[in-house]
Amino acid sequence: MTRPLNKQIMLAQIPEGHLTEDHFRVASTPAPTPTEGEILVRSKLIPLHAGSRAHMQGSTYRSVMDSGIVMEGDGLGEVVESRAAGFEVGDLVYGQLGWQEYALLPGDQAMAMERAEPLSHLLSVYGIPGLTAYFGLLECGHPKAGETVVVSAAAGAVGSIVCQIARIQGCRVVGITGDAGKAEWLKNELGVDAVVDHRAGNLRAQLKQACPDGIDLYFDNTGGDIFEACLFAMKMYGRIICCGAVASYDGPAPKSGPRGVPGLIVTRRLTLRGFIVHDFAQQHAHALAQLRQWVAEGKLRVQEEIIPGLENAPRAFVGVLAGKNRGKRIISLA
Amino acid sequence: MTRPLNKQIMLAQIPEGHLTEDHFRVASTPAPTPTEGEILVRSKLIPLHAGSRAHMQGSTYRSVMDSGIVMEGDGLGEVVESRAAGFEVGDLVYGQLGWQEYALLPGDQAMAMERAEPLSHLLSVYGIPGLTAYFGLLECGHPKAGETVVVSAAAGAVGSIVCQIARIQGCRVVGITGDAGKAEWLKNELGVDAVVDHRAGNLRAQLKQACPDGIDLYFDNTGGDIFEACLFAMKMYGRIICCGAVASYDGPAPKSGPRGVPGLIVTRRLTLRGFIVHDFAQQHAHALAQLRQWVAEGKLRVQEEIIPGLENAPRAFVGVLAGKNRGKRIISLA
Repeated sequence: MTRPLNKQIMLAQIPEGHLTEDHFRVASTPAPTPTEGEILVRSKLIPLHAGSRAHMQGSTYRSVMDSGIVMEGDGLGEVVESRAAGFEVGDLVYGQLGWQEYALLPGDQAMAMERAEPLSHLLSVYGIPGLTAYFGLLECGHPKAGETVVVSAAAGAVGSIVCQIARIQGCRVVGITGDAGKAEWLKNELGVDAVVDHRAGNLRAQLKQACPDGIDLYFDNTGGDIFEACLFAMKMYGRIICCGAVASYDGPAPKSGPRGVPGLIVTRRLTLRGFIVHDFAQQHAHALAQLRQWVAEGKLRVQEEIIPGLENAPRAFVGVLAGKNRGKRIISLA
Repeated sequence: MTRPLNKQIMLAQIPEGHLTEDHFRVASTPAPTPTEGEILVRSKLIPLHAGSRAHMQGSTYRSVMDSGIVMEGDGLGEVVESRAAGFEVGDLVYGQLGWQEYALLPGDQAMAMERAEPLSHLLSVYGIPGLTAYFGLLECGHPKAGETVVVSAAAGAVGSIVCQIARIQGCRVVGITGDAGKAEWLKNELGVDAVVDHRAGNLRAQLKQACPDGIDLYFDNTGGDIFEACLFAMKMYGRIICCGAVASYDGPAPKSGPRGVPGLIVTRRLTLRGFIVHDFAQQHAHALAQLRQWVAEGKLRVQEEIIPGLENAPRAFVGVLAGKNRGKRIISLA
């Protein structure tokens, strides 16, 4: 039997400076054949995560990526051949498919998924970004009504959901973004109370104006200069949720960190907490039920950018690192 | 009536680089006369705190010191004249006396103290250092038996007590110090399990050897390079207690902070918590009872350096900033 061709996006070279499309190349090989216990999955939707860039820098919570391999990543797909118990052709599964049309997975590394409409929501509001926003804000941050919550990368996949959940909790929400169009969208569509443009200069003064009484809770998706500016704007006994550090992903590891650490942490009695969504796996079902209810009630708007064509993944991913996306960016395959 | 002469140590100039004795000068003026509601206090013991140097840099939790004033500081003294209800000549009081022989205080800013033997313990183990160690380690850090606790400035006033309380809790304790004599003392006298010398180079490698499984709880008194090295040695879900930042007090405010912030906070799911001892004022009595019991049982050794002579305060204080002290350094007045 002739095997179908499997288009793949290879990470051809580990970048030393900024990542560009040139670090990737397209390959094409016959799709592999499953052996006992394996399934062959045809990719349908591949979400792009800024954090994947960090895995090219060095070991984080996953092992560092090697160059010359299929670009790593999760995704949703359909079983097209099965030699694993419990999986039939046509089943929807989630797993580490990589950036390719066909992926071979051991059955125990594939998660059967119930279909949703649209399917992409399983990778945004009901996937890692939605759960990250939910657990980070509610379980780590414990926001209280009336508090001032500042969110960086506010128009991003996680940030846009954090902003809305904080509004649902009765907080005053200040979003940090780097684009006038996103700023308008955050205010007019998501109901964010104030927006600060980190590319407009003098971030500390802008924060002071937006948060005259200081920040109770800062949800950090960026690290770097934005983290530092927010640290200096924290209220006494304030909390910082450390969710990501996109400002430092696309390049060599930073040579220094934010000023004010640990001095301001002491004098303002701050608490900083880092987390990864997987830490809350036991509570996913409860969180998903709550997220679904908020979406059904119209309290939580879902923002996605669906980009067709596997070959567009490198450019779309470089755009995510530059903050070009609004909400979750997802590659769809025919 | 002729007033007694009041010798005072003036902060003559706010330092821009390192603090030296030349930034101080000695003055002598007639002791002031209390008016209604005030007491005149003759200083007996003046503790030296590294943190006082930070108050010369800029506003922290107290307002910044002005130059050309009596050096600010707390102390123990005896009432020699009283026009305040509730205070009689001979009473022992604690308050913001400043570095001078006689201090005028409003009665409501003086705290009557019960005498202790020796009196200096009221400024070390039963004073701010002891309470800081107690609340920082136990209430903020929640150490568990068997955990690896790392303490910076381990031979200092706070650090030496933190090390011993952590041992009492059944933790494995690693002290960081910068002097071979202190290292021996920490091991032989305080029972610290291992010592790392931050002046001996390659701090990260030394920490890796002393903490092969990583650090569960890091009690930070220094900030700076030591903070950074410990951050990189933290165990997953580790906690960092931010108590002070002596590495950055003696000079202009640092131009950058530790690397790995916030990246490592996220990937290792760390919690950082800053605190000031005054936040726990409601629980001081309970803590003091526990500290007294440990001292009585011989489980907690009290280390002080009593230096006679007010005129020696500047040199002794500069020494504290350079890490020359072992335990609490206190100036005694005749």
